[in-house]
Amino acid sequence: MNAPEILPSPASNFSLDVWSARQLDVIEQALSRWVACPGDAPALAGLDNAMRYAVLNGGKRLRPLLVMAACAAVNGNEQAALRSACAVELIHAYSLVHDDMPCMDNDVLRRGKPTVHVRFGEAQALLAGDALQALAFELLTPDDDSVNSQTQARLCRMLAQAAGFQGMAGGQAIDLASVGVPLTSSQLHEMHRLKTGALLQASVMMGAACGAASLQAQNALRDYGAAVGLAFQVVDDILDVTADAATLGKTAGKDAAQDKPTFVSLMGLQASRQYAQKLLAQALASIRASGLENTRILQALADMLVNRQH
Amino acid sequence: MNAPEILPSPASNFSLDVWSARQLDVIEQALSRWVACPGDAPALAGLDNAMRYAVLNGGKRLRPLLVMAACAAVNGNEQAALRSACAVELIHAYSLVHDDMPCMDNDVLRRGKPTVHVRFGEAQALLAGDALQALAFELLTPDDDSVNSQTQARLCRMLAQAAGFQGMAGGQAIDLASVGVPLTSSQLHEMHRLKTGALLQASVMMGAACGAASLQAQNALRDYGAAVGLAFQVVDDILDVTADAATLGKTAGKDAAQDKPTFVSLMGLQASRQYAQKLLAQALASIRASGLENTRILQALADMLVNRQH
Repeated sequence: MNAPEILPSPASNFSLDVWSARQLDVIEQALSRWVACPGDAPALAGLDNAMRYAVLNGGKRLRPLLVMAACAAVNGNEQAALRSACAVELIHAYSLVHDDMPCMDNDVLRRGKPTVHVRFGEAQALLAGDALQALAFELLTPDDDSVNSQTQARLCRMLAQAAGFQGMAGGQAIDLASVGVPLTSSQLHEMHRLKTGALLQASVMMGAACGAASLQAQNALRDYGAAVGLAFQVVDDILDVTADAATLGKTAGKDAAQDKPTFVSLMGLQASRQYAQKLLAQALASIRASGLENTRILQALADMLVNRQH
Repeated sequence: MNAPEILPSPASNFSLDVWSARQLDVIEQALSRWVACPGDAPALAGLDNAMRYAVLNGGKRLRPLLVMAACAAVNGNEQAALRSACAVELIHAYSLVHDDMPCMDNDVLRRGKPTVHVRFGEAQALLAGDALQALAFELLTPDDDSVNSQTQARLCRMLAQAAGFQGMAGGQAIDLASVGVPLTSSQLHEMHRLKTGALLQASVMMGAACGAASLQAQNALRDYGAAVGLAFQVVDDILDVTADAATLGKTAGKDAAQDKPTFVSLMGLQASRQYAQKLLAQALASIRASGLENTRILQALADMLVNRQH
């Protein structure tokens, strides 16, 4: 469990692994049911296959777990959370499909398998990504009474902002423009705040939006999401230089080879590790300030994200 | 005006040109204000410029006009309609950006100007398209009381379905797979129902969703949207062989050159023209069946779409 020393250990009857396994079971089933299910559209010329290949590929589902954990902390609507969890994962999955394309990172391997454009062709990859983004918003707006309209609208707003030009897509544009360019620490932070941080933070906030969190709790979870989102990227940069491809499931050392600025290239390895731990401490402090009681999952997730080995 | 003979002419004090000019003024201002406005994000590495270039390019805004006309017919919330009009246009604009890319149609000219990837590079074009799709859903979910939550959620649902794998993206996948393949009439219809029809129909339905239309009116407007959506594509295919590039603003004869199936290649030119007129008559009959009173704009728009010269 690697529970951080700064906090009391989670109750001995709690295991993140057990909780995660149960959640992942539900999430994988929901994704398999909702992503362009065979039979929905018999004549889609393989688009449905490309979409399913992009999503049902053994991802770690960190974002969905953050959604479910935040929903649990506010005792929210679990149907709304499950839809949000899947929607956030679809946005993440589409971004990987487009990011891997030849005009972007030109990556041929993702989680140990051929990337979508290698397997299905570039045009199909482009369309599959586009369709996954639309599907995310479709999942958030079911035409029944399982999620009230106010929550539907709010979830769409949060996801759209996190995915768009002032979130993930904007961060990717900065990333594109920064290859081979020396960035300052604040520019690197801004890039990652948008590129990966916005969607991770939105995962937490959307989970919280599935319940009736106080303003104090919402603000605390926003801070938690920001710290966890940034820490995730710092750890990614660390693993890019310390882990091997087999452990990582993707090409290691790639950022350095492409002359992309990273936290490690800017701060060095040791300082990056210290920074990740500092961000973890900040995330845990935010949780304590939330006034929420059922936060042990959020605590354990933050710890796992920072201390992961792949 | 070319008012169809089957109907009484619109009242003599009504001019589609005057109405359209007024609407276009409002729509262009709204798009300019809402699309990645300079100052929103100073460090976006040109993404904002690519987004604005993709949208603020003199498009005909047919879809926004359909939204506004349908909203007028049901006396709906004009703020909701304006957001819907812009959101639909953003989806249309992003689809053109991605469609023009080398891995899809590889087109270098759009409305007489270099396409987005020619002007900004492929990676930026990919991201600009992605960000425009997200922005569409952001526009539909304002965090104020200008549009109620129920309408916001409903508009997001309709747009997501029309844009996704069971709508536009699905139609594009079928289109991709059909180059050089002989399609039956029903396959060609299915492709266009999804590829262009779904978003045109959604424009009408979203406009109607901005008000409290009866079920009878909603069904009639759905039928109107389906007929107009299909007629639009039939006319597009006709113009592709009869108009020159200067009038069309894009490469003429391109579908035939790429061996893409079209209504003209399947039915011949004369039968295609008759078919377009038949669809116009269907659209106008649907309007009559709607029970709505203020439908002269929808009538005139259908007529204009079918009898346009570019």
